[in-house]
Amino acid sequence: MASSFKTVGIIGKFSDTTIGGTIQVLADSLITRKLKVILEEATAQILYDTEPLEGVPITAMGERCDLIIIVGGDGTLLHAARTLAHSEVPLVGINLGRLGFLADISPTEMLSRLNEIIDGKFDEERRFLLSTDVKRDGQTIHEGNAFNDVVVHKWNTMRMIEFETYINGQRVNNQRSDGLIVSTPTGSTAYALSCGGPILHPTLDAITLVPISPHTLSNRPLVVSSDSEIEIIVKVGDEGHARVTSDGQTSAALMEGDRIKITKLKHQVRLIHPLNHNHYQILRAKLGWG
Amino acid sequence: MASSFKTVGIIGKFSDTTIGGTIQVLADSLITRKLKVILEEATAQILYDTEPLEGVPITAMGERCDLIIIVGGDGTLLHAARTLAHSEVPLVGINLGRLGFLADISPTEMLSRLNEIIDGKFDEERRFLLSTDVKRDGQTIHEGNAFNDVVVHKWNTMRMIEFETYINGQRVNNQRSDGLIVSTPTGSTAYALSCGGPILHPTLDAITLVPISPHTLSNRPLVVSSDSEIEIIVKVGDEGHARVTSDGQTSAALMEGDRIKITKLKHQVRLIHPLNHNHYQILRAKLGWG
Amino acid sequence: MASSFKTVGIIGKFSDTTIGGTIQVLADSLITRKLKVILEEATAQILYDTEPLEGVPITAMGERCDLIIIVGGDGTLLHAARTLAHSEVPLVGINLGRLGFLADISPTEMLSRLNEIIDGKFDEERRFLLSTDVKRDGQTIHEGNAFNDVVVHKWNTMRMIEFETYINGQRVNNQRSDGLIVSTPTGSTAYALSCGGPILHPTLDAITLVPISPHTLSNRPLVVSSDSEIEIIVKVGDEGHARVTSDGQTSAALMEGDRIKITKLKHQVRLIHPLNHNHYQILRAKLGWG
Amino acid sequence: MASSFKTVGIIGKFSDTTIGGTIQVLADSLITRKLKVILEEATAQILYDTEPLEGVPITAMGERCDLIIIVGGDGTLLHAARTLAHSEVPLVGINLGRLGFLADISPTEMLSRLNEIIDGKFDEERRFLLSTDVKRDGQTIHEGNAFNDVVVHKWNTMRMIEFETYINGQRVNNQRSDGLIVSTPTGSTAYALSCGGPILHPTLDAITLVPISPHTLSNRPLVVSSDSEIEIIVKVGDEGHARVTSDGQTSAALMEGDRIKITKLKHQVRLIHPLNHNHYQILRAKLGWG
Repeated sequence: MASSFKTVGIIGKFSDTTIGGTIQVLADSLITRKLKVILEEATAQILYDTEPLEGVPITAMGERCDLIIIVGGDGTLLHAARTLAHSEVPLVGINLGRLGFLADISPTEMLSRLNEIIDGKFDEERRFLLSTDVKRDGQTIHEGNAFNDVVVHKWNTMRMIEFETYINGQRVNNQRSDGLIVSTPTGSTAYALSCGGPILHPTLDAITLVPISPHTLSNRPLVVSSDSEIEIIVKVGDEGHARVTSDGQTSAALMEGDRIKITKLKHQVRLIHPLNHNHYQILRAKLGWG
Repeated sequence: MASSFKTVGIIGKFSDTTIGGTIQVLADSLITRKLKVILEEATAQILYDTEPLEGVPITAMGERCDLIIIVGGDGTLLHAARTLAHSEVPLVGINLGRLGFLADISPTEMLSRLNEIIDGKFDEERRFLLSTDVKRDGQTIHEGNAFNDVVVHKWNTMRMIEFETYINGQRVNNQRSDGLIVSTPTGSTAYALSCGGPILHPTLDAITLVPISPHTLSNRPLVVSSDSEIEIIVKVGDEGHARVTSDGQTSAALMEGDRIKITKLKHQVRLIHPLNHNHYQILRAKLGWG
Repeated sequence: MASSFKTVGIIGKFSDTTIGGTIQVLADSLITRKLKVILEEATAQILYDTEPLEGVPITAMGERCDLIIIVGGDGTLLHAARTLAHSEVPLVGINLGRLGFLADISPTEMLSRLNEIIDGKFDEERRFLLSTDVKRDGQTIHEGNAFNDVVVHKWNTMRMIEFETYINGQRVNNQRSDGLIVSTPTGSTAYALSCGGPILHPTLDAITLVPISPHTLSNRPLVVSSDSEIEIIVKVGDEGHARVTSDGQTSAALMEGDRIKITKLKHQVRLIHPLNHNHYQILRAKLGWG
Repeated sequence: MASSFKTVGIIGKFSDTTIGGTIQVLADSLITRKLKVILEEATAQILYDTEPLEGVPITAMGERCDLIIIVGGDGTLLHAARTLAHSEVPLVGINLGRLGFLADISPTEMLSRLNEIIDGKFDEERRFLLSTDVKRDGQTIHEGNAFNDVVVHKWNTMRMIEFETYINGQRVNNQRSDGLIVSTPTGSTAYALSCGGPILHPTLDAITLVPISPHTLSNRPLVVSSDSEIEIIVKVGDEGHARVTSDGQTSAALMEGDRIKITKLKHQVRLIHPLNHNHYQILRAKLGWG
């Protein structure tokens, strides 16, 4: 059977030289199936012999590939998803032995699962990302994408920060807390969960706003439509004592009056799972449910 | 200006004889505006002089009215919404002095707000209800509608109950707890909030499942699409020690093996608010946010 | 070496006929060590041949024994501790394969651990119980002891109850909730934990008051001295819709105005553990801490 | 009536020049009562005319005074309590209009309350502080006192820290979280409360350990005896990404392997309250209890 996938990309966990063997096996298996294989350039360097494989920058992979396999953990997949979001190329995650929420295929079942996926037997799940724009005096000073969460948080201080939240132009409240997590469903099982947030189904069109250690005990998590425009205005604090951070990676220092606008990114992540993928099975395993 | 509303119904808080004056004022004001006024039959009995007002059973009001005014608290509106759901008649709630999440117009602003509404100046909000079907050995033994929540809970015992939850046919988990709240966005500020659930925006197409005092601490609230089919199977317990209750009102005893299926009701509640209604303003007032 | 224990009692899990073998092995081992063995009378009936063992009512065991071995789970030990509290006889718990917070010796290590204990190699831990006195119109209508917790709770209703709490005569608050757990350190890992309470070290001289699903979100758990006199006054509710229950076992219906007084019982439980017993090891195992 | 207090010190909120009038009134009133008044030196500078008042360094006030009045908020009193702990001089707190947990006398009742206190009509409450010692390679690298809490926390990073906790030499657990709060009863209504900790009665001999946003959801707050020796060992993290901070004020950077030992300080704070002081009244006001 001819696969709808012609060119498959592989991205390995950054600077992990132990995964060379796994990636070689994977690449060989794909080549055997007459697929063209492209390696992310840093990943290419950890293979002894990459011929006839091509190493390209990750940013170029979206346009070149019909499917991208990520070998690593959830962190590697989060990074790839943010970087490749604009291309909407399908992504599939192989974990390195520790089950991930996103990288849900184990190394031992890797070849059989990928063969099925190449045969067209798979589930596709669309997940959204968040886009952040920070304005100071009307000028954008920072932009970022997040697959898990955008966090406005205290920094370099033990004091709580204070900020005001608006949703679709309606004022929600003023809050004093260690920060606020604005999370996608994907991020609802990450930091937001540790801070008391609910678990959102991965494909739910909703965003959750989870206060971090709020001073007012009734400041509970909110869940709003993913079409909402969320705006957070920093009320108090010198520059350097409040920051906004996307997926725990890119961040910017905030000053009083800065406005952080968070909306759904127009491009979505297409996540490929083996057939009969069950999100709750992963939750049961990760959260120790009976 | 001719109003799109021709016939307006009024439903008063059940067995509250102190609201006669308020209802009289309200009815007079509507009649002055050349509207036909229909009273719920029990409500009619608390007025001294109901001529030329008609008292009809609440179940008949949906077909007869273009708009129904509920005078009471959230409980009165919940009851009316469940009863009238099939007719999708617009509802507006007047509270008796204590701000409600649903009955958000105060007696002092009642006449001016209703005049605006009759003039066509209003916001309409669609909210969904839940429909419950309980099956024992394949036969339906109980049905009910809920605007706030469907709760499966222990009864007449200090022991936790045990049950298994499925969402869209996928097994979520087995749980030992005092119960499980399946809540609409409307119900998310009621009992579910006391049990640690998140606050859902009223118009979000989502349902939250909030465990009540679960034995396993990682059994956190879930949020899923309102199109989900939720099924709860009672695992352990004699009849009489587990029940299912809709909106704290109608309920049924459960036995081991009973299957409680919960889905969105196809009819929606059309809730009328004054223009520029702000849900967060109510949250701030009710939850004491700064 | 002569043991300080001369007469050892054995109490088995109520109506569990599978433990006969374990109890026989245990009794034989004690007899070999020249100890007199007394069986709780129901326990005696599950042995084929109890000669020369004596079966006595549990209430008489405290005065007759120097040490009592409980074979079962935490529930069996809770029951024995309540019943025997007045005698302050040392107790040691053998679990039936599932680690307990109280019954912390597994069947496989039972004989070696008990030999050490009989040799005088053990840790003794003193734990307190709670005493409850319920007064209606000045007359005591109910009394009870609890090793885990005294719970004032709703009953046969979906509505919250309302009550007022006093500590040492000082008014704490009025509360609407599903109830209030007044827990010993021992009970802090039981129902109180499911309701959001803290984990108290077993020997801490403190009581925790944990609200069950309180309407007011700032009604957080309190921790007070174990010498405190706690009084709960039922504010609203027909008889039958509020109850007080000790250790999930004995309970009484409450009416408006009933006063539940809870104090530390003057007698303590002496719990015997193997040397180097580590409470945190049990917590790690039971709570899945890494 | 001769007062047992002969020399009274006054400490004002640091760098708040608006309190000069209040302090002048206070000093005049004390002088009228034939008491010697000593001012903290920075406080002295905000008075126009301090004759015949003496300004002395805060560190010298404990030995010179029989009573010290703190005019400010809880922060000012926390600072004074830490600084003067060794002298065990009685402290009384006047707030500046906003009720404090510690500074519980309002400006309007200030003179009448202080007259009663000087007449010997007062309640004295003893509260303990925490002492922190941080060792690296066996050498103490930091020491500090805390009246509220000692917090081990992440710093300059979005990543959780990892640490191991021991209580009285027994290993509790390894934890990944944003940090751990080790709180006195006094601190249990401060940051610990925002992070989900219980409310400890001010005079309870107990310490609570409250995890901040722990990765493992069953890592719940612990409550242990105030005589416990708590040791926290930093497991992972470069210097600069974990810190220990006392009362949100003094802090030190931590490295992997650093051992933070926390014990009760031998000196106690003697807090003076008006007669019939009621801690729960303050809780009701501050937490919005009904």
